[in-house]
Parts: sequence; C-alpha cells; structure tokens
Amino acid sequence: MTLTQGRAPRPAEKVRGTHHQASLIVQGADATGIVAALTSVLSGHGANIVSLDQYSDNAQGGAFFQRTLFTMDALQAALPALRADLDDRLVKQYGLTYRLRDLSVPKRVAIFASKSDHCLLDLLWRHRQGQLPINIAMVISNHPDVAEEVRSFGIPFFHVPSMGPDKSAAEVEHLRLLKDNVDFVVLARYMQILSGEFIERAGVPIINIHHSFLPAFIGAGPYAKAKERGVKLVGATAHYVTEDLDEGPIIEQDVVRVSHADTAADLARRGADVERAVLSRAVLWHAEERVVRNGNHTIVFA
Amino acid sequence: MTLTQGRAPRPAEKVRGTHHQASLIVQGADATGIVAALTSVLSGHGANIVSLDQYSDNAQGGAFFQRTLFTMDALQAALPALRADLDDRLVKQYGLTYRLRDLSVPKRVAIFASKSDHCLLDLLWRHRQGQLPINIAMVISNHPDVAEEVRSFGIPFFHVPSMGPDKSAAEVEHLRLLKDNVDFVVLARYMQILSGEFIERAGVPIINIHHSFLPAFIGAGPYAKAKERGVKLVGATAHYVTEDLDEGPIIEQDVVRVSHADTAADLARRGADVERAVLSRAVLWHAEERVVRNGNHTIVFA
Amino acid sequence: MTLTQGRAPRPAEKVRGTHHQASLIVQGADATGIVAALTSVLSGHGANIVSLDQYSDNAQGGAFFQRTLFTMDALQAALPALRADLDDRLVKQYGLTYRLRDLSVPKRVAIFASKSDHCLLDLLWRHRQGQLPINIAMVISNHPDVAEEVRSFGIPFFHVPSMGPDKSAAEVEHLRLLKDNVDFVVLARYMQILSGEFIERAGVPIINIHHSFLPAFIGAGPYAKAKERGVKLVGATAHYVTEDLDEGPIIEQDVVRVSHADTAADLARRGADVERAVLSRAVLWHAEERVVRNGNHTIVFA
Amino acid sequence: MTLTQGRAPRPAEKVRGTHHQASLIVQGADATGIVAALTSVLSGHGANIVSLDQYSDNAQGGAFFQRTLFTMDALQAALPALRADLDDRLVKQYGLTYRLRDLSVPKRVAIFASKSDHCLLDLLWRHRQGQLPINIAMVISNHPDVAEEVRSFGIPFFHVPSMGPDKSAAEVEHLRLLKDNVDFVVLARYMQILSGEFIERAGVPIINIHHSFLPAFIGAGPYAKAKERGVKLVGATAHYVTEDLDEGPIIEQDVVRVSHADTAADLARRGADVERAVLSRAVLWHAEERVVRNGNHTIVFA
Repeated sequence: MTLTQGRAPRPAEKVRGTHHQASLIVQGADATGIVAALTSVLSGHGANIVSLDQYSDNAQGGAFFQRTLFTMDALQAALPALRADLDDRLVKQYGLTYRLRDLSVPKRVAIFASKSDHCLLDLLWRHRQGQLPINIAMVISNHPDVAEEVRSFGIPFFHVPSMGPDKSAAEVEHLRLLKDNVDFVVLARYMQILSGEFIERAGVPIINIHHSFLPAFIGAGPYAKAKERGVKLVGATAHYVTEDLDEGPIIEQDVVRVSHADTAADLARRGADVERAVLSRAVLWHAEERVVRNGNHTIVFA
Repeated sequence: MTLTQGRAPRPAEKVRGTHHQASLIVQGADATGIVAALTSVLSGHGANIVSLDQYSDNAQGGAFFQRTLFTMDALQAALPALRADLDDRLVKQYGLTYRLRDLSVPKRVAIFASKSDHCLLDLLWRHRQGQLPINIAMVISNHPDVAEEVRSFGIPFFHVPSMGPDKSAAEVEHLRLLKDNVDFVVLARYMQILSGEFIERAGVPIINIHHSFLPAFIGAGPYAKAKERGVKLVGATAHYVTEDLDEGPIIEQDVVRVSHADTAADLARRGADVERAVLSRAVLWHAEERVVRNGNHTIVFA
Repeated sequence: MTLTQGRAPRPAEKVRGTHHQASLIVQGADATGIVAALTSVLSGHGANIVSLDQYSDNAQGGAFFQRTLFTMDALQAALPALRADLDDRLVKQYGLTYRLRDLSVPKRVAIFASKSDHCLLDLLWRHRQGQLPINIAMVISNHPDVAEEVRSFGIPFFHVPSMGPDKSAAEVEHLRLLKDNVDFVVLARYMQILSGEFIERAGVPIINIHHSFLPAFIGAGPYAKAKERGVKLVGATAHYVTEDLDEGPIIEQDVVRVSHADTAADLARRGADVERAVLSRAVLWHAEERVVRNGNHTIVFA
Repeated sequence: MTLTQGRAPRPAEKVRGTHHQASLIVQGADATGIVAALTSVLSGHGANIVSLDQYSDNAQGGAFFQRTLFTMDALQAALPALRADLDDRLVKQYGLTYRLRDLSVPKRVAIFASKSDHCLLDLLWRHRQGQLPINIAMVISNHPDVAEEVRSFGIPFFHVPSMGPDKSAAEVEHLRLLKDNVDFVVLARYMQILSGEFIERAGVPIINIHHSFLPAFIGAGPYAKAKERGVKLVGATAHYVTEDLDEGPIIEQDVVRVSHADTAADLARRGADVERAVLSRAVLWHAEERVVRNGNHTIVFA
C-alpha cells in the first residue's frame, strides 16, 4: 500500500476472473438458432464458455442481447480468425452486430472531476485495490484542488480551467488530451455541462453520476430540491451522457433513507455515499462489458 | 382466525403499547423552556412519559415539534383538567398548538379502493392481526369486485359507482357516508381523482398511495413511464392528499430494484409489494399520531 | 375477485411468460462444447431460446449449471424426441444430468401451516393474482384455525392434528394425502419438525421458511434470541429441508432494520413481513425452475 | 483539499450542529417526573433544547434512557453549576446516572489497523471532510503498510509489531501510546485479538468492526464460512469490544446481497463496502453521544 507509482499493482492482473478471458456482446433482431450458431463458432475455436447471459425483449421476434464470457488458449493470436467466423455467421447470416474484447486489456479511462472528491477518491482507491479492470489514464479538473491527491495514487492530473459561459477553449484542450488515449470518460461529479459537439467529437462513451434518483430532480441543486419537496429517500443515478441533460440511458441507481431532521447539507452528505457506490458499480460494469445500450435503455448483465 | 365479525379481535386491545396511553403533539415557534413547561404540566397530573421525541428545524429560533407518549391513571377522567393546563401553559404562554389524544380509542377510517386489492387486503389483514390501531368503519369502491372479500373480514362495503367526468353525485354519496363516521380516509389504489371541494368538505386527513417514487412519474401510468425511462428502481409514495395532484406532503416512500428484463407489468407487480408496505406504514404512523404536518412537509416520529 | 372456486383465475394462463415455454436445467462437470451441443439440439428441434443463464464454479474444469428457457411449437408432442436427443448428447456424451419441464403445466404444491397465517395468506393471495405458476393442491395444518380462510380461496384444507412427541400417525396421514398429488411441499411457518423418514418417503422437495437470518439463531424462538443478542436487523431464510434442522440449502434470505425500542413481539411482527416476502420469492423461483441444488448450496437463476 | 496537515480543516467546526452544543445522556430506573426535573434544570440554566430522545424499556417501571441535545450561552463557564444541579436533581433525587459533554470538544480517538485499508481510509476521508466530530490522535498498526497513506492525511502513525502468541510487549506499547491521549479506540479491521487485561487497562470504549452479521460466523474467516454455508447476504457488525470475542454490545449492522456466483474473495470485496459503512456510522454515533450501553445491548438515538 505505498503510493509510489512504480510499485502500484497492475489492476488487470488482480481483478477477478479476467485472465485470458474475452467477452462477446451480440445484439440484433432475435431469430431461432442464434445461440446455437454463436456457441458452435466459439466451441469450434476451442473456447470454453464461462458464463452466458441472454435477454430477448419479446419471445416472439423482438430484440436479442447476449453477453458471453469465455476463455481460450492463445487468445490474442486466435482473435482474427474468430472475428472472421463471427462476421460470417452472426453478421452476414443473422444481421447481428457484435463486440468482441480481450478482457486482459484494461479499458483506458479519463476521469473528470471538480472540487468534490468523494466519487473520484472511491474510483482511485478501488482501482488501487485491483477492484476495477481499468487503466486510469488521467484525471482532468476545472479546479486544482484534487491535484495532490490524484498524483499520490500515481495518476496524471491535468488542470483545465473552464470559466465563463464559453467552454469551447476548455473543450478543445479536453479533446486534445483525450484523443486516442482513452476508451471512455467518467464524470465524477464534474460540475460543467458538456456541449453536444464535445460529446460527438470525443467519440467514446461518457458516464455521468447525477446526484438524484432520475427522473426526479433533473438539473442543478437536486438535494435542495429534495429537501424542498420533503422526500424520504435521496438517490443517485449513473447514466451515459447524451446531448439531453440528465436524459441519457440509465446504468445504475440507488437510494438511501433520509428524514425530516436532515438538512439539505445532510442530504448531500448521505447522498454522497450513494453517489460513489452507484458510480463505481456503473464503471465496473461498463469496464467488464456488462452494459449494452439499446436506444435510451441499458441491458445490464450484472 | 375465523372470519365472523362477532369474533374478530378488537384491534386496540392487541396493538403494542396503546393501553391507557395518550399522545400529545405540540408544534409552534421554538422558545427556551417549552419542554420544561410541557413536562411539568404532565408530571403535575401524574403522567409517566413513555417516550418523547422532539425536533426543532433550527437551533436558533425555528419551528418546534414534539410528540410525547404518556400513561396516566384514570386517563379519560383527567383529560379535561389536563387540557385546561395545557391551554394555559402551551397555548397562552408560548403560543403553541397541541393535539392530545387517548390512544386507547382507535381512529376510525374509511378505505377507498377500486379493482386492485393488494393495498386493501394488506390493511384488512394487518387490522385483523391487531397490527393497526384503527377501526375500519367502511370500505367504499367504485367497483363491486372486492365486496365479498371486504365483508369476509367483517367490514361494511359500499359500492358507489363513479362513471363519467362528473363525480359530483358520487362525491355527495361519499360525504354522506363519511359524515361524522371517520377520522381519516385512506385511498388504497382508488383510481379516481377527488375534487378540491370534496377534500375540503370531508374535513379529515386523506392518505393516498401513489405508485411511483414522487416526484418522479407524477400522474397516470407511472409504471409505463418508468419502463419507458429505463429506471433501475421503482417505488411508491404515501402522502396526504391536497388539491394539487401528487403534490401533497409525503409521509413515506420506498423502492425495489428492477431490471431491464422486467416488463411494465413486472414493474407493476414488484411495485405492488412496495405500495402495500409503504401504505401500511403510513397508516400505522398516522394512527399512532407519529406524523405532524408542517406546510408541505411531514415530521415523522417513527 | 370473487372467492368462488369455479371462477378462480387459472394461474398458468396469467403468469408472465410461461405460455408454451419449457425450461431445461443442465448440470454436471464442465467441458468445452457443452453449450454448443445443448443449443444445437434445441435449435435442431426448432426451439427458440428466450433466456439462457449459465454458471461454472471454476473456469478451468469445475461444475457447470445452466438454465435455458425456450419456446417451441407443439411442445408436448415434441418432448419425447427432444429428450432422446438430450440423452444422446448431454447424458451419454458429456455425462451431464438434465431436467426438462413444460412450464405450461404448473407444479402442484401442498402447503403446511400452523396458526400463523401471514405466509400462508400471502401465497394464497399471490396465487389468486396469478403471480405464482403453481396449483395449490391442498393446505394441511395441525390446527383448524385457518380452515375457513383457506377454503375462501377455493383450496382444500385438511386438519391433521399432531399432538405429543410421536408424530408418526400424523406423518402417515400426511404421506397418504401427498402421495402422487404434489410436486413439492411448502412449510409456511409449520411449527412441527418433520422426521427424516417423512422427508425421505415424501420424495419431493420441501421448502421451509425459518424466521431468522441463518445461520444466526438456529432452532426455536429466533426472535427472542435476536432480542436477547441485541441485533439491529432481523431476517428470514427460505431453504430446502434436510434431516439437519435449519441446515438445508438456502434459497433466499432477507432482513429488515429494527431498533432497541422493538420488543421481541415487534421483531416478530417486522420479521413476519420479511418471512412472507422471502418465502414467496423462494416458491416462485422453485416453481419457475430457477433453483438448482448443488450439495448444500443453491444456484439461483433469478 | 490539500493534504498538508497545517491546512487541514478542523473537523469540529464543520460538523453539523455541534457548535456550542452539549449532550446530556441520562439513564437509570424509570420514575414519574424525571423528564420534568431534567428539563426544568436545563431551562433554569437558560439552555435551549434542540432535540430530546427518550426510551423506557417498560412503561411500568423499567429502565430509562434519554439523550438531550441543547445549546447554551457561555456553555463552558456554566457547566460546573449545571453539573451541581444535575447531581442534586437526577443523581440524589432519582438515583440516575448522567453523562454531560460539550460537543464542541471533539472526542480523541486512536485507530488500530492492519493491512486492509478500506475501513481506515474511509474514516480518514470522512474526518477530512468534516463528517466526523473526532480528533484522530494516532493510527497504530502491526504492519507498516499504511504508514504513508495515514501520514498523507496529516495523522501520526505508529508501527507496533505484534508477532508470536505473546502480545504483552505490544500491548504495553499500545497502552503507553494511548495513555491520557484518547477517549476511545477504533479497531478498523485490526487482525489481532486484544487481551482482557488490555481492554481493562485501556479504560476507554473500544469499537470493533466484525466482518459478518453477528451472531452468524463468529471468529476468524467469516467470508469463507459464509461461502461454505451458501448464504444470500453478507454483513458486518460494529460492536463494543468485551473480553468475549465478537460477543460485545452491537452498535450497528448492515448487509449486502450476494449470489452463488460470488467467490469467497467476492464476498470479502462486497462485504468491505458494508464494513466501512457500518463502522463509520458507529464511530459517528459514538462520537455524537448517540449510543448508550445497557448491559450487552445498546440504545442508539440515531
């Protein structure tokens, strides 16, 4: 448990069950025989299926979603041939799309934060514990406050100020830092709104934590609104970011009980515990390829 | 456990701790010495305080709320003198309001229901078990479906049809049935909107169960809306009814986890379990004088 | 919602997703190619896989468990040929065992109860709602108290007294009633211990609800023991019955928060809500073939 | 949010509602008039009661417990006179005991840890956030691993090795460090058993976090035992340490759902989140004088 970068554990080697494993996500229109086709391709390549989760939203011809986790000797070498077969059988024959990933290669992530550090610290700590199969490539913040803490975990920190209504200069800098360096972005209580152009140009999934049980209390100041309404639970929502503020596909939500005696500050404090738990679950599931987007919904094979 | 009315348990005799007990709710502007004044009045009458809960929304001069539960010999005989002293010390001296009630006299309630029986049945069953210190004076429904079930519990059932947009005839009948007969009303998934005039003329608190985690999914069809939005939890909210639909003071809320695999019907089924739990808690707390209204908020001493 | 037997809903027609569906449970030693073999057999018979859950307790050669839900035209007629193929491919080739069931045929159950009716009533009510794909063949009790209630749901009730230490006469009568009539037994707070001989001769799974979070508070009086120990949560456990009291494979557990102010009777009252919830989930999952026993453990595909 | 000791926030100034507040805990045999006596003493000294929680374990003559939170001008100066009056009215007249504390003076604590840092880090972080009204005087560990992390929060760290069966040398060193320096001790996953002599000589309350839902899985290796038994929830228990291992008064417990697919290591990982949450609540409540010991039970006014 030293904080020196050189001795930090390499997370992908500690995370449960990802050694030499690959995940295959398949989605598309349901049809008889898909699973048989898919599994015969995998077994034809000597893959051993570790887990297989499937969901059809309608037994009579709806949409089909499947996550298969498998192990295979010499996985990297075998991937091109496997892809060719999957293209033949799943894409051409059944019109499906698929996503195949070697889970021994951790996803690279940039975390955006502002002044609050509870979500950020929880991700940094879980990563150091080997609980999250990710490589935290960088932390970006519009405030310098958390720099020292981030760097004590051996993670690069970049301060990109973002003042005034025009965020375009900051976003240019963000895109320059992210370009080709990350597979997804996490907004860990980043208190700035991203432009639609940024979201599009970033070109990777962006996960946000909103400090309410959406769709209740959309927008700014949800804890103050919750106090005003007199709710008996407060919550948090992790979702993919879209152009519509707080309207993207929900990955995970949770709540905690509060009482009349809790001030808005108490709600924020209790909610912070929920925020960090919800965000860390969402990041874990995204990193483990457990989340499939379907329009504005998610299928979560957790 | 027979269903004959004559042999039904008398709830007030079975419910925990309400024998010969009284509750005193006090609220108003906070001031130094209130609790001392209040407790000295009670001890002067030989009352033994069983529990005392207090809440001030601001240590420096905010609003003050207190619930005291006490036992006293010859309670009924002593109430007039006790009231006189409380008027002197709390009302005149401190400008507070209070509510004093002999808890051995169960509150009388009318339950309104429609076709769904899960909330209704849970209240009837808990009442029969002696869990709710209430007298269920009647069940009123706009459908005849639950008549036989209600009467099997020894409770009167009245069918008051309510068709078409004009509810005034039905509401006249409701008011006639309720008049002087009940201390509060429970809407146990009653699928009709009450007019502001009815609420005012009924003159008693009305508790509703809404099948969502308010303020999310206000209005009709919350489970369909929840499915549409892709939430990961569904909930229920018990609140006092005001003229503004689903906007009244919240008494209790809870949620249950759902997944992408749940259809809107599954959400309704899972939510039903939460609805009945939340409503029964709200009814218990209201009946035990644990709920104090403060504007559009509630203080719940539970 | 009438209580006349003749008009009772036929549950199997209302329960979500069981029309013309079949479940296939497969378990045994893991090997490469099992899933491919299994799914190719199913697709060879024109089955459409609705969901598929799999679990291997060790990626390198452990035990394998799979639950497949599928639809198939003319299911009943096709079952013999399907069984023959499964025998060839799964049993002979891979040494696995399997359990194939037409889910449109509800499992037949006998519920044993004593004086407490909360678990019993919840099962009867959920069954009437169409939430449980079971046929409740009979309710058996050592007390006559719940007879009228059970019969109001259109379910046969048999009173089998069980006094004194020798239960053998009662067990003979139980076995006579159960013989060839039921697929499993549910002990809904049945306060008698079953003999090992009875369990063996009954020859069907028996599900019990224990009123504690096992393995805490094994045996009689768990709420009194919980009060004595001063726990802050009380729970309930549904498990398969084995000869060792309260030691059988756990199907489901849950808890509820309690406080110092709760008496042992309050714990029992709060726990009762958990008991009925836990037992109804266990019965649902067992009826839907979601539970696989593995030694003293269960795999629950819920 | 810098990590420099000199600039660390002083927690007691940030924690909700403790400015110039005092708490008064009273316990003993219940009698009519206690609350009136107590509140008249307080109001006689110009105290304003902010909250008042009371519990009697029996309305007819049981044990009485009360926590009163009040504000008072010139609190420190007034304490001696207030104590004198409380001695007169509560101790002499009613035979009660009381504990009066100025909440603006944070309790001093020593945290004992071993190699796991999840509970420790959560306490350090919450303390830095101002969520815990404590002064962390020191962290003591039998391993040097967490030294750098602890010191980055500006907290002294002492490494006291404890090898072999004889802990007496280590305990002598512990007692030397603790003497007159701390008001309580927290064992944040400290993996050494304390001797009865140490507990007695330390002379301050010791709070431990046990990684199971006690009384299930007492002793070492609870997650392995939980996996072996096949439970569906794992939990954690914060309790005061007594000579009897894992048998002391329980302050707080909580659980999290697990499944058959979780390995013992997964249980440990999921349980760690519960451990840190439960321990931080117990520490907060102890620090805020919300916990009263009553034999082997606790009254928690939370």
